[in-house]
Amino acid sequence: MEQKTIMIVGLGLIGGSIAKALSAFTPHRVLGMDVDPEVLDEAVACGAIERQGYEEDLPKIDILWLCLYPQAAVEFARKHGAALKRSCIVTDACGIKNAVCPQLKELSKELGFVFVGGHPMAGKERNGFAVSEATLFRGASYLLVPCGAPQWAESTMEELALQMGFGRVVKTTPEHHDEMIAYTSQLPHALACAYVLSPRCPGHRGYSAGSYRDVSRVARINETLWTELFLENREALSRELSTLMENLSAIQTAIDTEDAETLKGLLRQGREVKEALGE
Amino acid sequence: MEQKTIMIVGLGLIGGSIAKALSAFTPHRVLGMDVDPEVLDEAVACGAIERQGYEEDLPKIDILWLCLYPQAAVEFARKHGAALKRSCIVTDACGIKNAVCPQLKELSKELGFVFVGGHPMAGKERNGFAVSEATLFRGASYLLVPCGAPQWAESTMEELALQMGFGRVVKTTPEHHDEMIAYTSQLPHALACAYVLSPRCPGHRGYSAGSYRDVSRVARINETLWTELFLENREALSRELSTLMENLSAIQTAIDTEDAETLKGLLRQGREVKEALGE
Repeated sequence: MEQKTIMIVGLGLIGGSIAKALSAFTPHRVLGMDVDPEVLDEAVACGAIERQGYEEDLPKIDILWLCLYPQAAVEFARKHGAALKRSCIVTDACGIKNAVCPQLKELSKELGFVFVGGHPMAGKERNGFAVSEATLFRGASYLLVPCGAPQWAESTMEELALQMGFGRVVKTTPEHHDEMIAYTSQLPHALACAYVLSPRCPGHRGYSAGSYRDVSRVARINETLWTELFLENREALSRELSTLMENLSAIQTAIDTEDAETLKGLLRQGREVKEALGE
Repeated sequence: MEQKTIMIVGLGLIGGSIAKALSAFTPHRVLGMDVDPEVLDEAVACGAIERQGYEEDLPKIDILWLCLYPQAAVEFARKHGAALKRSCIVTDACGIKNAVCPQLKELSKELGFVFVGGHPMAGKERNGFAVSEATLFRGASYLLVPCGAPQWAESTMEELALQMGFGRVVKTTPEHHDEMIAYTSQLPHALACAYVLSPRCPGHRGYSAGSYRDVSRVARINETLWTELFLENREALSRELSTLMENLSAIQTAIDTEDAETLKGLLRQGREVKEALGE
């Protein structure tokens, strides 16, 4: 792939890690935009970006990577999309897709750019540029949501993801993405918060080990971002919450009625699912 | 501490790890009993135990460590307690305490031995001697449940736990132990099984990262052991399940009604609990 100029908008944990991975592992030029001037200074100082990006750069860039909250990403494209080249790829890093892809696709036709959706499947229970890392995506899955983009653009993003260290690229639709993410990511985050609200949580020290640590880890949440992500995928997430509560309720009923056979059967089913997956 | 002879009954993950830790990090003699002759051979071959233990050894040992399922541990003490020295410490490794400590305490008076309850807070999502490790307890918490044992016996077990590599010894009652364990360990195990029963689970590959992995990890459960543990602590566990489902339900209601402020407030509370704990 020939050298491209890539503008990262929003240098938080994900945008910062994307910038660092691009600068460390690919030959491309990386520019960055952020509302916080200190973050921009830091990003230049550590080599994550070549320099701050400006509105005047937009007509010249090859890829615009929106690493903002979902609706802010759409707004940025609406405001600046017309300034881009017709061959400029606009992509995003949003954790939900139904609420952003159709809008960005529409804008791409209206304003003249190429849209390819994306979701890097990696994160941390801390936020901000300070905790971003070039190796955050090592071995992780890159969810590519082409939304009818031309093949060359899809291939560019796929190649770029692999150059950055992602372990695999999975192509999907916004609908399937959101259904799966509700289960694999949003539900565990909701669960972690619900779990630590028990009155027993503050006294867990000395009485806990790996299973407490693992379930509660992501309760250290960015509530502003996740409120938006949850509400913009509310049907799929609500369905997962119902499924989980039904399964918990079945376990509770077996416990309350001292029904050892049913309880053992439910736990066995859980074990068998994991074993079938080879996990 | 002078050299003691310690008999481990049950060389599974926990009993095997206790034997290995005692042999590796303390000066004591370790004997082992197990229903599986191959496990005994393996334990001798790798140096986890000096040799197989026999009924004839029971009158000479200083510590009898019951690493069996809860009711099997009580039965072993009932059957063999009278053969022990009056100064022999009988201890256990059971994950619940109300269902074993009062019975073992009673037997200690009736049959003449010293009882001190214990629960090593470490585990793995695999079972059996083959996955046991001398370092399983490194830095972990050892829950000591003295149940009115004489001070010297309590001190012996405390010192032994620290020699074996535990990071801390926490003394507690059977009641408080079971209440805390319901939250820190049993609930995450019930949760992991309930979580993987979603129809979305088998297709998670490519769409998942750390939060799926962490919540689902312990679903690979020993359903026979955990059915017993759950049923013998059913009141505390059922209460935790209710608390969790109430909190999940509050999150679901906020999502269904698109009540961003309430949702954000619930997630914020979760974050604040974790932050207050410095986690």
